[in-house]
Amino acid sequence: MQYVDMSKEDLLETKASLEKEYEKAKGLHLSLNMARGKPAPDQLDISRGLLDVVNSKSDLTALDGTDCTNYGNVNGIMECRQLFADVLGTNAENVLVHGNSSLNIMYDQIARGYAFGYLGETPWCKLDKVKWLCPAPGYDRHFRVTEHFGFELITVPMTENGPDMDVVEQYVNNDPEVKGIWCVPKYSNPSGVSYSEETVKRLANLKPAAKDFRIFWDNAYCEHHLFGDRKIDEVPDILSVCEKAGNPDMVFEFASTSKISFPGSGVAVMAASVANLDDVRKSLNCQTIGHDKINQLRHVRFFKDAEGFRKHMEKHAEYIRPKFDAVLRIFDEELSGLGIGSWTNPNGGYFISFDSLDGCAKEIVAKCKEAGVTLTGAGATYPYGKDPKDSNIRIAPTYPSVEEIEQAAKLFTLCVKLVSVDKLLAAK
Amino acid sequence: MQYVDMSKEDLLETKASLEKEYEKAKGLHLSLNMARGKPAPDQLDISRGLLDVVNSKSDLTALDGTDCTNYGNVNGIMECRQLFADVLGTNAENVLVHGNSSLNIMYDQIARGYAFGYLGETPWCKLDKVKWLCPAPGYDRHFRVTEHFGFELITVPMTENGPDMDVVEQYVNNDPEVKGIWCVPKYSNPSGVSYSEETVKRLANLKPAAKDFRIFWDNAYCEHHLFGDRKIDEVPDILSVCEKAGNPDMVFEFASTSKISFPGSGVAVMAASVANLDDVRKSLNCQTIGHDKINQLRHVRFFKDAEGFRKHMEKHAEYIRPKFDAVLRIFDEELSGLGIGSWTNPNGGYFISFDSLDGCAKEIVAKCKEAGVTLTGAGATYPYGKDPKDSNIRIAPTYPSVEEIEQAAKLFTLCVKLVSVDKLLAAK
Repeated sequence: MQYVDMSKEDLLETKASLEKEYEKAKGLHLSLNMARGKPAPDQLDISRGLLDVVNSKSDLTALDGTDCTNYGNVNGIMECRQLFADVLGTNAENVLVHGNSSLNIMYDQIARGYAFGYLGETPWCKLDKVKWLCPAPGYDRHFRVTEHFGFELITVPMTENGPDMDVVEQYVNNDPEVKGIWCVPKYSNPSGVSYSEETVKRLANLKPAAKDFRIFWDNAYCEHHLFGDRKIDEVPDILSVCEKAGNPDMVFEFASTSKISFPGSGVAVMAASVANLDDVRKSLNCQTIGHDKINQLRHVRFFKDAEGFRKHMEKHAEYIRPKFDAVLRIFDEELSGLGIGSWTNPNGGYFISFDSLDGCAKEIVAKCKEAGVTLTGAGATYPYGKDPKDSNIRIAPTYPSVEEIEQAAKLFTLCVKLVSVDKLLAAK
Repeated sequence: MQYVDMSKEDLLETKASLEKEYEKAKGLHLSLNMARGKPAPDQLDISRGLLDVVNSKSDLTALDGTDCTNYGNVNGIMECRQLFADVLGTNAENVLVHGNSSLNIMYDQIARGYAFGYLGETPWCKLDKVKWLCPAPGYDRHFRVTEHFGFELITVPMTENGPDMDVVEQYVNNDPEVKGIWCVPKYSNPSGVSYSEETVKRLANLKPAAKDFRIFWDNAYCEHHLFGDRKIDEVPDILSVCEKAGNPDMVFEFASTSKISFPGSGVAVMAASVANLDDVRKSLNCQTIGHDKINQLRHVRFFKDAEGFRKHMEKHAEYIRPKFDAVLRIFDEELSGLGIGSWTNPNGGYFISFDSLDGCAKEIVAKCKEAGVTLTGAGATYPYGKDPKDSNIRIAPTYPSVEEIEQAAKLFTLCVKLVSVDKLLAAK
């Protein structure tokens, strides 16, 4: 029976029994964490071979003759640019390979718009106001970058096909203060949604009121399938779709090996039109003499080609899939039919997105915390950390073990029930 | 005989003979480069052991339990902070370990002042004008960063004790638009000068008109002695001298292992007061989840402690010293007593600074180029690439072999003579 259809008496009875269960759960003194989109420690062991492909006896010369032990090459070594071009479905000349963090490249790219402006346009720091579109639920670290620069964050609802394009078009095509949009096109954080072909086309065919409007296309989960090649979400290459639409300079794409090799010790890339990259190089050449080419070489020699990435990602999926399965099974067993929550069932990425009854998310997260299970803060998936409905919770099942994730998911469903009953009782 | 005392006839005769020599030199079809402050390829082999201390079988846990294969720790791992604190003579809590490039940290730190302001002061992008002191001759990449942000660069003459402090005090203590100064305190680029204790004290005791005035203290050559411990320039720890002077927040210090381990694949650090670092962390936490901790661990395990750095730097000096010796010997043999140039004789660093007769530097560099020897562009050591006297040339002897450097230095002295004779003849 759906909770909403229960009588007050039934709800009170349910509540009493849930509270007993909750007290028992607290007695277990759990200390579990479903907050962090991090690979598990044992999972990372599959990448350790990366640390052997370069050693003191290695030839550290790149294919074009670049000595990777010395200064220079702000573009990244060519074979690494080519490798990522193949992964992203673009060309090597459209790719710059940087250091260890794609977030840092995105931050830098925002900072360049702020301080210098793109392709000769007015630097944003000279404008009264800059607005930024934030499809939500989305990635808190994206939102925080644009908040840090003082932009006005505008929430765009996420649909099952990506951001609500009617809303996006309305803003972008009419308001010159709207300078950008955050996008995670594949296995989106946190919903796992992949943008449909139509969404990608509508994005590429925007007619921005601002010449310097840019799509920030964080392809963080480009190869992060949960089911190998049995179920793969395909998202068209944004660079070529934009070019075809007559908007070749409208997009910056980002990716990294953070969840492929080692988080924090991988390589990160930016892809864009050559005109945009020339613009980037103007400041990049002031900023650094070059990134870590030995680590770039290490990655090329370990993964070899795009197929190497794919095979490696299947190994990652072996670790992650049982954890997603466990959460989804328990959610299904414990919550389906009760009408107190819905959740996503993605084909890739690192998250499951859960939506409770309105006004329950914060309380659910607090109840979980009280019983030893840490979740991503409620609201984190919305601009300014404020979920207007207080209903979205990001579930990150990858870091704990399967056993731990089962305990955590059970406790989570218990808290969902408890908080929902309270909510419904308060309305009676 | 000094060229300046020669008769017109003597000069013409000398010129004729020099021109013959020059034509002969051109016939050698040299292709040498004394432009780049880069270690030589064979020299870098001494650091290759760095690539073995971490491999697939290594325990990649930092001393405080941090898993270096996973996300996190924006400060850098504690043992690496401690290592650099020992090298710089400060405390671990005053050190942040970042990625591979200290130039990038300096750029970021300028960008933070520009976009956010330091410790609550007005962001520089909101001001009409920002001025920056540039002791010159100095490092072109420093000057370029501040030029890129549109600051007005003010040349401060370098003396044998560091920047002319009368000039620095005059500007800093009176003009609130002066927001910073570039400093390379030890074995300065390009003169090799180390700041005297008095210079350091006067810098620390500035009474800036701008609250957000900062000393950018690029300790790039902190351990880069040419003569091991036989001749070491000592420069006091700027952080503690500033603190003692009541200006604890007035300085950002930078260093890296670029010329210790591998250029481009090393680790770089920033040192400052905790108040400043807290301020940095506000944006750093938006910018990245953390830097490459595996590479930090690699460096700690290879160098072990500050003494390890020192021993390693003695090996580097074995490669570099004969090259400096060769240049200085040839300059001495060919130029001393002629009154057409002076040069520095540093105890460390990567450069020799040469001063020709006024108005000759560009022509000397061009003549060298014509005969196959590339030098740093004349003017590069001054703000905006413009040496008002057109006399300073940066000599970088480290990259070529000793044999090559001898050829290059000889050709250089020949060009100095030739251009000087022309100059003196033109004045007759």
